[in-house]
Amino acid sequence: MTRILYSLCGADAHRPFSPHAWKVVMALKHKGLEYTEQPTPFTQIPNLENGFSKTVPILRDGNELIRDSFDIAVYLDERYPDRPTLFGGEGGKALSRFVEGFSQTVVHGAIARIAIKSVHDTLGPADQAYFRSSREAIFGRSLEEVAADRQREIDTFAEKLKPVTHTLKFQPFLGGEAPLFADYILFGALQWLRVTDGADVLGKDGLLASWFERLLDLHDSAGRVVTAA
Amino acid sequence: MTRILYSLCGADAHRPFSPHAWKVVMALKHKGLEYTEQPTPFTQIPNLENGFSKTVPILRDGNELIRDSFDIAVYLDERYPDRPTLFGGEGGKALSRFVEGFSQTVVHGAIARIAIKSVHDTLGPADQAYFRSSREAIFGRSLEEVAADRQREIDTFAEKLKPVTHTLKFQPFLGGEAPLFADYILFGALQWLRVTDGADVLGKDGLLASWFERLLDLHDSAGRVVTAA
Repeated sequence: MTRILYSLCGADAHRPFSPHAWKVVMALKHKGLEYTEQPTPFTQIPNLENGFSKTVPILRDGNELIRDSFDIAVYLDERYPDRPTLFGGEGGKALSRFVEGFSQTVVHGAIARIAIKSVHDTLGPADQAYFRSSREAIFGRSLEEVAADRQREIDTFAEKLKPVTHTLKFQPFLGGEAPLFADYILFGALQWLRVTDGADVLGKDGLLASWFERLLDLHDSAGRVVTAA
Repeated sequence: MTRILYSLCGADAHRPFSPHAWKVVMALKHKGLEYTEQPTPFTQIPNLENGFSKTVPILRDGNELIRDSFDIAVYLDERYPDRPTLFGGEGGKALSRFVEGFSQTVVHGAIARIAIKSVHDTLGPADQAYFRSSREAIFGRSLEEVAADRQREIDTFAEKLKPVTHTLKFQPFLGGEAPLFADYILFGALQWLRVTDGADVLGKDGLLASWFERLLDLHDSAGRVVTAA
């Protein structure tokens, strides 16, 4: 059966960096499902699968096409119920939305402000033009003006992750004794930063750093294979 | 069987306000368990149950004594497995810790800065002296200096709850279609603010306000019975 994950890359196809696609990489490996990854530059995404989605990740699973990382995780858990669960029950599925909310409304903005220039610089020429115009419209400032806040964002990053640190005082993963999709949600964000920019926001030890290292080790070091920027 | 919830009150025993005790009120009602609530002033807590705990909530369940709201919820779910679940599975239990982390590291501080003077003013004389000295030690400022930031904290409160708002775009409760302990964790914090201070931080409509109203309606309006300050 054909199983393809369309993810996102810059000029180097071997350095996929989309936080949402990384969630799906980890989810597919968690379920033990073989797949081919097809990293795609921003401006070529509209050509994928006859224009199925404006954004990645997109998963082709045989005859099925699914977009959106959360919807893909739900699909995988329902389609392959005999493989390890991504949610640990209905309560875990519901609360994973809250982790997504935390990641997207607290963490993503901070990472975008840290890594915006690094992301830009990894892109090919067509993507650079698209990225600059779309992101400058979102921020209402030039990329360079956003990037001027980089060090301040790095300095305040661990403070924003206090809810994660609290959780790790009680258990090794957000999902408990073993990782669940909730861990991969935040992993995706931090891996996006690691691959594009490499800023050290978690420190060298402590609960956050050791949790992220454990996630990088998972599934034959699937995350670590792509080196830090 | 004797089942007693020791909670926290000021001069008026009919206005219990501890966020952690409110979580347990909702958890007990969720499980359909009868109990007697014994609201207790700060300075009398060390006398409860032969000095069992320096803080409330404390639950006496027959011969069992349990402290800490999360531990009490876990106890109730394990002791009464045939009644409605508080966690919706192991994943839900694990991720409830993350909601607790969010509540305690993001929400509680903001509420404390909004309501600190209101809480003080509801206490009896002995508790007022204890509260002032302990809280001024924590904040490193006088209660009045902390309270000077009240309006700014109110104005920025909804912004802090963006992860909750995100979740409510997909489902009526953090727990999904029905509430779980995770909902009660954040409810406890907001009820603490509602009972002591009454600041309008959620607005009159919108996803946050309607979610909180649904929680106030639950279990024969257990939360609404104590009126807003």
